[in-house]
Amino acid sequence: MTSSETAAAPAAVRYTYHCTLRWSDLDAFGHVNNARFLTLYEEARVALMFTAARARGLTSFAEGVVIARHEVDYLRPVDYALGGDGGDAAPTVRIEMWVEELRASRFTLGYELFDAGALASRARSVLVPFDLRRQAPRRLTEQEREFLRPYAAPQAGERA
Amino acid sequence: MTSSETAAAPAAVRYTYHCTLRWSDLDAFGHVNNARFLTLYEEARVALMFTAARARGLTSFAEGVVIARHEVDYLRPVDYALGGDGGDAAPTVRIEMWVEELRASRFTLGYELFDAGALASRARSVLVPFDLRRQAPRRLTEQEREFLRPYAAPQAGERA
Amino acid sequence: MTSSETAAAPAAVRYTYHCTLRWSDLDAFGHVNNARFLTLYEEARVALMFTAARARGLTSFAEGVVIARHEVDYLRPVDYALGGDGGDAAPTVRIEMWVEELRASRFTLGYELFDAGALASRARSVLVPFDLRRQAPRRLTEQEREFLRPYAAPQAGERA
Amino acid sequence: MTSSETAAAPAAVRYTYHCTLRWSDLDAFGHVNNARFLTLYEEARVALMFTAARARGLTSFAEGVVIARHEVDYLRPVDYALGGDGGDAAPTVRIEMWVEELRASRFTLGYELFDAGALASRARSVLVPFDLRRQAPRRLTEQEREFLRPYAAPQAGERA
Repeated sequence: MTSSETAAAPAAVRYTYHCTLRWSDLDAFGHVNNARFLTLYEEARVALMFTAARARGLTSFAEGVVIARHEVDYLRPVDYALGGDGGDAAPTVRIEMWVEELRASRFTLGYELFDAGALASRARSVLVPFDLRRQAPRRLTEQEREFLRPYAAPQAGERA
Repeated sequence: MTSSETAAAPAAVRYTYHCTLRWSDLDAFGHVNNARFLTLYEEARVALMFTAARARGLTSFAEGVVIARHEVDYLRPVDYALGGDGGDAAPTVRIEMWVEELRASRFTLGYELFDAGALASRARSVLVPFDLRRQAPRRLTEQEREFLRPYAAPQAGERA
Repeated sequence: MTSSETAAAPAAVRYTYHCTLRWSDLDAFGHVNNARFLTLYEEARVALMFTAARARGLTSFAEGVVIARHEVDYLRPVDYALGGDGGDAAPTVRIEMWVEELRASRFTLGYELFDAGALASRARSVLVPFDLRRQAPRRLTEQEREFLRPYAAPQAGERA
Repeated sequence: MTSSETAAAPAAVRYTYHCTLRWSDLDAFGHVNNARFLTLYEEARVALMFTAARARGLTSFAEGVVIARHEVDYLRPVDYALGGDGGDAAPTVRIEMWVEELRASRFTLGYELFDAGALASRARSVLVPFDLRRQAPRRLTEQEREFLRPYAAPQAGERA
């Protein structure tokens, strides 16, 4: 194995999104509602797949990607910590995302959600590109694969 | 009928909840938002574990059950079908629930969500009874097991 | 009773909508969140203006009505009353609606929200029919006025 | 009256909060849902009355203030503008708040909401301090009045 080959397998880049919590995310138990976590993950996904992609000229994700599956693990409750920093900024959580698997016509995103530095939740979403006109799933385009590839863990493999 | 047929453990009872959709469940794509499905499942879970349980004198679930994990599969989009029946009632989805696994200190609920008779989503939640005073997980009480048992699929087994 | 009394314009018909509460409507104070009331009123408005209107062949409201203003008064907190009836049905609130004012290119809806028979909130919405293609306000059509008129209080007057 | 006294009535300070929009704030019409505006205003109010107040040692607002009334005017639709700045930050709206009226046992907040510099909505909330133990309205404390006073327009007057 040559060093250039070693170099060719860089660790996956994680996409980081700081999601501002809202007081209205709390439920009657005083914690961020468990169902609401999917909304926080959604905001991170939108930032990557709609906003960041669009900034690089890629609008096809925003035009049609279907969610096939979500998994969420809850490790610790998240609160709306008032005045943690002595200021009046709303609390945020840090969401890190990467591509777990990249296949011909579906891909899997992994997420970790950190509250004040502590891992509070993990999640995974299976996404399917969708052709709105034909109302049918479609294959990922080469431009889409190129956009996602840097976020793909090397061991994730990639199948055409 | 033979006794062996009798011995063939009875099928689990499913708990059925009709959840009223809201127009505000729709997202910018005009479908019920995928994250919102967890809220619909939550309503079914609250009806079983808070309301129905309380009606039978069991309030310990409402006082502390922690969600450890959710899984949701999306099979078809759900819309807010206007005037489907020629009347002005809001559309509903039918959610069926059962107990997939019943262990000493955790249990798993299974769900299916039907829209106009068609299966639109499946889900699963892992729940952990929680002692709020001690701030620690606890074992299911015998009363709680008795309440859940009729909804448990025979093959689910039950471990103390 | 004399015919002149009969001629004294009939009382307005109120449109009644029973809105199912959700456990997720509660905020960290354990009451239905005050901002969420607008969503409950929205569900009643959708039932009247999208669903009931459509059932009578009137789809123009669903195609474009803009909210110009909302006013909400909060008279008493609304809770998610568990097992009030000894059953497992989710609690509902009763919303009554009528037309407070009917003008050429705007109208005002009045609402009252009852929880367990007690008036808990009052509201008012000013709505403006909107031409989506021209992206401009438009006048109410005769069909729309006919649909709204039975809900209009006599003293509301009606101006062309 | 001396000129220094005149000078002692400076224009009210406005409290400014930048509220991050969420993609899930959009409704089926593709705009931030009108009911959701109350949630955005709520976030600004929480930042001032819970977080900023707490940072100055004032926790009594967080322990009990009841909303008596909201008014909202909608001047232009607010969208979730993708990639407005060529980056992937979520869009924000700027909310400015001040005290319109300060009375013995209630006060009124005024708000303006700006989207990309343009005024998109105005609102007003009437708030009533509440004694949770006695379950009854209470008077504003001197510490609370002191906290609110800088945000009060001079013409607002102040009545004991």
